[in-house]
Amino acid sequence: MSVHISQQFNAELDAVKNQVMTMGGLVENHVQSACTALVEGDSVLAERVVDEDFKINALEVAIDEQCTNIIARRQPTASDLRLVLMIVKTITDLERIGDEAEKVAKMARELAELGESKEQYVEIRHIGEHVRKMLHDALDAFARMDVTAAVKIAAEDEKVDQEYEAIMRQLITRMMEDPRSIQRSINVIWAARALERIGDHSKNICEYVIYLVKGKDVRHVTLDQMKKEFLE
Amino acid sequence: MSVHISQQFNAELDAVKNQVMTMGGLVENHVQSACTALVEGDSVLAERVVDEDFKINALEVAIDEQCTNIIARRQPTASDLRLVLMIVKTITDLERIGDEAEKVAKMARELAELGESKEQYVEIRHIGEHVRKMLHDALDAFARMDVTAAVKIAAEDEKVDQEYEAIMRQLITRMMEDPRSIQRSINVIWAARALERIGDHSKNICEYVIYLVKGKDVRHVTLDQMKKEFLE
Repeated sequence: MSVHISQQFNAELDAVKNQVMTMGGLVENHVQSACTALVEGDSVLAERVVDEDFKINALEVAIDEQCTNIIARRQPTASDLRLVLMIVKTITDLERIGDEAEKVAKMARELAELGESKEQYVEIRHIGEHVRKMLHDALDAFARMDVTAAVKIAAEDEKVDQEYEAIMRQLITRMMEDPRSIQRSINVIWAARALERIGDHSKNICEYVIYLVKGKDVRHVTLDQMKKEFLE
Repeated sequence: MSVHISQQFNAELDAVKNQVMTMGGLVENHVQSACTALVEGDSVLAERVVDEDFKINALEVAIDEQCTNIIARRQPTASDLRLVLMIVKTITDLERIGDEAEKVAKMARELAELGESKEQYVEIRHIGEHVRKMLHDALDAFARMDVTAAVKIAAEDEKVDQEYEAIMRQLITRMMEDPRSIQRSINVIWAARALERIGDHSKNICEYVIYLVKGKDVRHVTLDQMKKEFLE
């Protein structure tokens, strides 16, 4: 490959990576807004997340198209090809994080319309902040192709799962004690579930980074094995 | 591209497609077994699904690797390239259906160990059968690249969502009437949720088929628009 073509290829690749970061920033914003809307009963904020989900979808379609074009026109070598394919997978997870944020926002809108009082859903504040940070850090690891960071962030997912389990146990106890709280508790469970899935998708992004850099498929390796191999 | 190379390419592509069908068959079997294990309290069957999930993961890794190699060595044209990229996405969804089946199987195992009596989870029998059929038909549509079938199967997902909502309403009512049923009801809700997600993933596969054949991104188009465009 001549230097000229290689430079063009790199420029195109950088442009696509930048678009992934733009998409990631928008998705992160939606996660944060959806949680705030739910906890604070802010229907205007919730409406905005629902209304603007199409922007995330449009970015996914556009980036996907660009990746296909790059492969078709540039015919990249195996390692560059892996990077492009990794981007295609990353945006699929980002788009699905956007869907989960939209679900939380729709719930926030519905509850705000029902006139639920504010500060009702404080349980999800912590897990929401946790997965938003996971997503933010996963995007950072993607931008810098930082394997060490990626392994650490992927490990956070276990803590998110534990938080989720704790919320579940707490709510089941509450429902048993006070059956009138069942409908509300189920709503909290749905929101927590959506947030927990955002943790899963953020972990997927970290695994793509590790896979790409280490050239090894770690998607089905346990976390302990990963830590052993990459952090010790 | 010479006829010779083109024939080799087609043979490789057919081999990959066959592997996708093998993987799909295994995933379908896991969905069915997991549901049966839960409804009939069959811990041996549940154990088998959990133990053999690694086979699905291994198939995903192997097919993913083959797809990368085909693109790198054969440098397919835009339309062939789209097919290979579509296969990469399809196996990601199949792998995640396998994960959902594993979750249902783990729940079945746990409940069987707790000595829950059989026929406890009949509510999920119908939705389980529905999503298994959706997956089966989606794989058929993939094998034949049948857009008309794909649109119809994607439309089934709405019915699955409705079934899921009906199960939810029924269980919430039951929990309110009898708080002792809460833990059990939550279990049914988890299983139904996992099955509903299998419907989502099967719909994704159908959308890839439509996208590939129609050359249009239908992933973010509403079902009504799809029906209008492709069925009328």
